[in-house]
Amino acid sequence: MTITENNMEIGYVGLGGMGHAMASNLISKGHTLRVWNRSPGKAADLVAQGATLVEHPGQAAAGDGVVFTMVADDAALEQVVGGPDGIAAKLGPGGIHVSMSTVSPETTQRIAALHAERGAAFVVAPVFGRPTAAAAAMLFILVAGEAGARDKIMPLLETMGQRVFPLGDDPVAASIVKLSGNFMIMGVIEAMAEAATLCEKYGVERSAMMDVMTQSIFATPLYVNYGKLIAQHDYANPGFKLSLGFKDANLVMAAARKAHVPMPLASMMHDRFLSALAKDRGELDWTAAALNVSEDAGLRS
Amino acid sequence: MTITENNMEIGYVGLGGMGHAMASNLISKGHTLRVWNRSPGKAADLVAQGATLVEHPGQAAAGDGVVFTMVADDAALEQVVGGPDGIAAKLGPGGIHVSMSTVSPETTQRIAALHAERGAAFVVAPVFGRPTAAAAAMLFILVAGEAGARDKIMPLLETMGQRVFPLGDDPVAASIVKLSGNFMIMGVIEAMAEAATLCEKYGVERSAMMDVMTQSIFATPLYVNYGKLIAQHDYANPGFKLSLGFKDANLVMAAARKAHVPMPLASMMHDRFLSALAKDRGELDWTAAALNVSEDAGLRS
Amino acid sequence: MTITENNMEIGYVGLGGMGHAMASNLISKGHTLRVWNRSPGKAADLVAQGATLVEHPGQAAAGDGVVFTMVADDAALEQVVGGPDGIAAKLGPGGIHVSMSTVSPETTQRIAALHAERGAAFVVAPVFGRPTAAAAAMLFILVAGEAGARDKIMPLLETMGQRVFPLGDDPVAASIVKLSGNFMIMGVIEAMAEAATLCEKYGVERSAMMDVMTQSIFATPLYVNYGKLIAQHDYANPGFKLSLGFKDANLVMAAARKAHVPMPLASMMHDRFLSALAKDRGELDWTAAALNVSEDAGLRS
Amino acid sequence: MTITENNMEIGYVGLGGMGHAMASNLISKGHTLRVWNRSPGKAADLVAQGATLVEHPGQAAAGDGVVFTMVADDAALEQVVGGPDGIAAKLGPGGIHVSMSTVSPETTQRIAALHAERGAAFVVAPVFGRPTAAAAAMLFILVAGEAGARDKIMPLLETMGQRVFPLGDDPVAASIVKLSGNFMIMGVIEAMAEAATLCEKYGVERSAMMDVMTQSIFATPLYVNYGKLIAQHDYANPGFKLSLGFKDANLVMAAARKAHVPMPLASMMHDRFLSALAKDRGELDWTAAALNVSEDAGLRS
Repeated sequence: MTITENNMEIGYVGLGGMGHAMASNLISKGHTLRVWNRSPGKAADLVAQGATLVEHPGQAAAGDGVVFTMVADDAALEQVVGGPDGIAAKLGPGGIHVSMSTVSPETTQRIAALHAERGAAFVVAPVFGRPTAAAAAMLFILVAGEAGARDKIMPLLETMGQRVFPLGDDPVAASIVKLSGNFMIMGVIEAMAEAATLCEKYGVERSAMMDVMTQSIFATPLYVNYGKLIAQHDYANPGFKLSLGFKDANLVMAAARKAHVPMPLASMMHDRFLSALAKDRGELDWTAAALNVSEDAGLRS
Repeated sequence: MTITENNMEIGYVGLGGMGHAMASNLISKGHTLRVWNRSPGKAADLVAQGATLVEHPGQAAAGDGVVFTMVADDAALEQVVGGPDGIAAKLGPGGIHVSMSTVSPETTQRIAALHAERGAAFVVAPVFGRPTAAAAAMLFILVAGEAGARDKIMPLLETMGQRVFPLGDDPVAASIVKLSGNFMIMGVIEAMAEAATLCEKYGVERSAMMDVMTQSIFATPLYVNYGKLIAQHDYANPGFKLSLGFKDANLVMAAARKAHVPMPLASMMHDRFLSALAKDRGELDWTAAALNVSEDAGLRS
Repeated sequence: MTITENNMEIGYVGLGGMGHAMASNLISKGHTLRVWNRSPGKAADLVAQGATLVEHPGQAAAGDGVVFTMVADDAALEQVVGGPDGIAAKLGPGGIHVSMSTVSPETTQRIAALHAERGAAFVVAPVFGRPTAAAAAMLFILVAGEAGARDKIMPLLETMGQRVFPLGDDPVAASIVKLSGNFMIMGVIEAMAEAATLCEKYGVERSAMMDVMTQSIFATPLYVNYGKLIAQHDYANPGFKLSLGFKDANLVMAAARKAHVPMPLASMMHDRFLSALAKDRGELDWTAAALNVSEDAGLRS
Repeated sequence: MTITENNMEIGYVGLGGMGHAMASNLISKGHTLRVWNRSPGKAADLVAQGATLVEHPGQAAAGDGVVFTMVADDAALEQVVGGPDGIAAKLGPGGIHVSMSTVSPETTQRIAALHAERGAAFVVAPVFGRPTAAAAAMLFILVAGEAGARDKIMPLLETMGQRVFPLGDDPVAASIVKLSGNFMIMGVIEAMAEAATLCEKYGVERSAMMDVMTQSIFATPLYVNYGKLIAQHDYANPGFKLSLGFKDANLVMAAARKAHVPMPLASMMHDRFLSALAKDRGELDWTAAALNVSEDAGLRS
């Protein structure tokens, strides 16, 4: 029996915008899911598709099955994994926990150790992409963890994304590369914001400048999407909340601190996001850091 | 008679890696060129292709013809334009000077004024791309200046690049957008260098991390090319010298200063390049700024 | 009976360079002390002066007496205060805990709450000055906490320092002002290091420049002492270890993060210290951050 | 005849707040002055004291006399020194030009060369202190230049300040040390502003925190004066205008650039002042950079 056969035991814990879309894609490929979410209402349509709603995170996990988690942060992950009703208490040898959240290397190591005690495997598989990409199964998925477990879940990951990037046996690798990617996006936000402000002051429309960049040397959906938001100062419909961006800036800095890596660009973005929080912008899209750049230049004040 | 007819008078001044390739592309499309370079040896094969080598920059310019310049910096541009043997002294009504160098808005304004006195047009058309892209006519070309003149030279620009981006009537617009692009690349260098160093310290190979990024959310030739150099600390064959990157960082900061735009990321990159110069790295590729990031983390010292 | 009478019950917990000197000063003024230190050997000469060495931190505290703590960091403070043998378990109504360590506002609040439960008072009294200043009773002492308790211990503080600065009833005030002071010193280190490096490159001796500054507009012992170390790159005999400076930079940033205060100078110093740690300089004096400034300028590499 | 005899030929060029006070002190010690200022009205009371008002800067200089200059910036200095009516055209062997302005090392070198051609000596003698200190002859004066000339003017400098610091034969030394001092003050402004903002957010009054600092480890008039302005956000009566501070930040960065010294704190202050200029604060005291720190923290917006 292989995991790609549809009678495999699969659980999905965490049904926010991202998790819900990924779980839905698994179901639509014929997999039977047990699902859990802190607010169970989010599971309603998945249940209508055939999923079983369970009462505790641990119930989503069969002893030798696969359980995915996609939760908000380190604390939420520790909560669904630990305790008597948690995932770790249910998984045994042959079981695989696939964590898709962006969390710190330290949390990753702690959870890996927990599962190792019980003979279960821990695979870290964070993603790049917004909820629309998740719904379209167009995510980029990183994956790191014990090779056998990784191989087993690969077909499931391929169901959820356009491409999967294996990063070896140490689950920490996927965590740190994912954080690096989010950090690089922060750098893009700052660079675009400064450049747009410079152009604006020289009489070039922000969007004219962005159009050139995103149709020439920076022709990727990421630059196109972010460029549009920053050009128009349009932050009201967050794809990724600034408060979460700040959380990631802190994760990056904490990881850097532990490894003795000075990252002045990360420090700069930490301070940018902090100022945005001080101005009550935590619920806006994280590109709203660009507002501070404009304000520093005496614009929009 | 249109400019695309081959009997049009065309001059090309500045035959470094970029200018030589662009001039060669014009010749191969059937245009007759008068060319000038500070060290005339560079013109030999263009002459073999049919170009005429002249003795002064001004001789490359016919009164109502088109003359391109692609020189190293503001000073070199002022030199080929000004003086009795300069371009400005030769161009008259109907003449067009197309400046393709990356220079400051101030120099752009000064030269525009000079040409305006004599009734000649000034068009600024800086490019994104390295010499290989110039040779393959795959450059991205920005263009700004008086509309009539812009229209006339458009077919010539299209001969040299894969796409031309019009930016209106004010030549300064093209200068500032070009500087903004170079500045955004500086931000990419710093972000990649910090992220690679972080990953390296967590046991992930620099190139493994770069591969993920450049095949997922940062899938553009720019990230691919720069990522490879930074991953391998391979700076010995400069596509763009660090000393020139430093020049551009200073142009960005001077423009920002004049317009009252604080650009902390530009300041950071100014300091990075400055440290690289202090360590005698001016002749390396400008991605060598990444060496400082590694050294700050106690690596490669 | 007042606290200034010598039969008052006084405990002193934490006998490193600073604590030992302060305890010794209390004894020499006729006070009877019960002392505790993690490594008891440090107490030997205090015992010879008449102090009683106890086995647990809590034994240093009489129920309605005064107990001072001067320990390394937040964790050490929590350790001597909490648990069955800790200070909090022994102090009752009328008892006063005077914490002289530099710790976070959060730890301060947590310990204040702990004592409040039992009716004991918590006073925070951090100091400015190095061990030599402590020995000479020349410390500057900040003090904040409930007014009655503050008044009671004032004569004891005056025994230990040249001046005491009251900062009101909220113990957090003393913590945050002390952190601010340490942060301002970090700024002095960076400014001196950059200025000295600039002068050195222009042929002015580092010490010549420092002499001018410290005898004119910056004529304070702090600038004199730090200036000498930085001028001579003399960091081998730490007055304050760089690893502790890094700890304080992190406390400042954590406090700033919580209060939504961007502090780019603190971020810069965080990164400076982090680079110094990456280069194995944690055991040097914290002014060794200046080495990085010189290295960035291509000196001493 | 020595220079201290009152029949010595002395000129003073530049009668702003600082220059006027110093000239007045020279006169009150019995010296006869020829004075010049761009707006001659400023000289009225000096003339009443016995000075002679001349029509061109050069007329303030006798061939072998001493002429002081205290003008706004590099351009103003070049203007009073150069040209047919300038100082350099009038001074000959035995003559001494004493420049007291804060200017760049490059300007200093250029003017030194100009005087050397004609056999005149060039001494650079910039000062620390505000106009009130100048009036009270309490300035700190740096001095560098050819030893014989320096000795000759020493008694005059001592008349104007509380202490004179000799810095050797190369006039550039005094320029770079003066710039370093102004740079260090910028660092003080930023550190105070960040610390005050942090304390404010934790419920400690800005002035309470400043009082502690300026009466303990930072007990100098500089900290006292600047601390008061920053604590009270009181910038309306500039002792030193922010636009001039920005000019000095640029001089520091230009000097650093030339010598390959990365100075991230200088870059930070450059950006702070630039933002302040963008917000129309150039005419405020330069401590007004602290407003930006508060605004970044969401205060006073």
